[in-house]
Amino acid sequence: MPTIFTKIINGEIPSYKIAEDKDHFAFLDINPNAAGHTLCVPKREVDKIWDLSEEEYLRLMAFSRKVALAIEASVPCERVGISVIGLEVPHVHVHLIPLQSMKNATFQHKEKLTPEEFQKIAETISGQVK
Amino acid sequence: MPTIFTKIINGEIPSYKIAEDKDHFAFLDINPNAAGHTLCVPKREVDKIWDLSEEEYLRLMAFSRKVALAIEASVPCERVGISVIGLEVPHVHVHLIPLQSMKNATFQHKEKLTPEEFQKIAETISGQVK
Repeated sequence: MPTIFTKIINGEIPSYKIAEDKDHFAFLDINPNAAGHTLCVPKREVDKIWDLSEEEYLRLMAFSRKVALAIEASVPCERVGISVIGLEVPHVHVHLIPLQSMKNATFQHKEKLTPEEFQKIAETISGQVK
Repeated sequence: MPTIFTKIINGEIPSYKIAEDKDHFAFLDINPNAAGHTLCVPKREVDKIWDLSEEEYLRLMAFSRKVALAIEASVPCERVGISVIGLEVPHVHVHLIPLQSMKNATFQHKEKLTPEEFQKIAETISGQVK
């Protein structure tokens, strides 16, 4: 069974897309810790990040850096944090989270956005991806 | 003023060292989310991870991967998570955290270890660094 992220990548489930290349896909987390919270996913379905080859892992981290720089350039925040947890969806994903305070890093506080707000922030960030 | 991490790297503040190379240093977090929680730090003092050059960032992430694989091989856990937050110490640090549950990823729950327990876990992990 494909993971929910594979369905998003394949367009079977809609998403607010931020960026894509041959091997990676980035989109907004729809249950965000903060506005602009983005997930970066390798297209290949692998459960744990440490099960990627070193080369695959470094390419995912390089892709995530491009997306993080775009978030930093477009979302007001103290800094952009990284989290890799993966206890819920067995498909590697790098959380990039605009942090104002520790509250945004704990996954305990969630931000509510309207579809229009998601759409607008996705366009703003994706317009900054170099 | 050097950061607390620079003092640790220079041996002015003691630490439970895990690994070191020319440009990086890894040691146990003494206020850990879980036993084995490790910090990977570039020796160069830079505040935000996105201010590292792409090459420096990828070398830090490659160093962190080596340490994570050693944690995975030696600390019983569901998986090893990554967090980069950096709101407290203005010197880039990658948290590698053995996760059993979401509780270990929130930075709200802290584990108490004795100096002997820290010492033992540091020896166990560092013995697995390839």
